Formats: sequence, structure tokens, C-alpha cells
Amino acid sequence: MKKSFGKILADARKEKGLSQEQLAFESNLHRTYISQLERDIKSPSLETIKKICQALNIKTGDLINRMEGEP
Amino acid sequence: MKKSFGKILADARKEKGLSQEQLAFESNLHRTYISQLERDIKSPSLETIKKICQALNIKTGDLINRMEGEP
Repeated sequence: MKKSFGKILADARKEKGLSQEQLAFESNLHRTYISQLERDIKSPSLETIKKICQALNIKTGDLINRMEGEP
Repeated sequence: MKKSFGKILADARKEKGLSQEQLAFESNLHRTYISQLERDIKSPSLETIKKICQALNIKTGDLINRMEGEP
């Protein structure tokens, strides 16, 4: 996989025009945790990824496929 | 999401004609853990899903999207 989860998460969040605080609120996660995910300090569980994708209104698998450099 | 991760994992494994033992060997995970994932007793991390998908030779996001009932 070419891109890290943290990189694609940050990109997807910015595409939606959300701050880390806003995404944290929408996904019911802590802002610090969002920040750690984006810096690849933490690795997410599937449940976490689902929460984030619901908050970003994108399909979970579509976000994951971005890690493989797919359109 | 309509299908559990355990259900789509079991389906994908069977499509490839692999036993739980074979998938465990190919993905460097324990057979007991594969069994727990398939019964939705355990929830996987992204890293685990990636290992399994590499072993099954399918794209990680494509497997995840099956949970949402996509083709």
C-alpha cells in the first residue's frame, strides 16, 4: 500500500472541509486520537474506521482503497 | 452495514477454496483467531484486515465494501 492510513484520513477530512475537532465531534472520538491516527502513531480498528467514514459520509472500503492508490 | 465482518470473511475465504488453517498460515495469524473473527467474537484492526486480504489476494477496501452490500 502506497499511502498510510493517517495520510488518507487527513486528506479525506480536509476534502470535507472539517477540522480535527469537527471530525472528532461527528465521529464520537477524541480529537487527540484523530490527531494520532493522522500522524500514524495509532492504528485504527475496523470499528473506528467505520465511525470516521460515517462522519465523513464516505464508504469505508472506498477510504481504505485510497491506501492502495486507487481512484 | 448489512453484513458482519465475520460473515464476509468466511464467504471470501470459501470463495478462494481455503480452510481456516490455510488462511491462518498464509496470513500469519492463528487459526483460532481466524475462527473468532468469522464468528464476530473478535473485531479486527486495519493491520489484520490487510494481512488477510493479502493472503486472499483481494483489495482491502473491496472486502470492506462487501459489508455494505456492494457488488
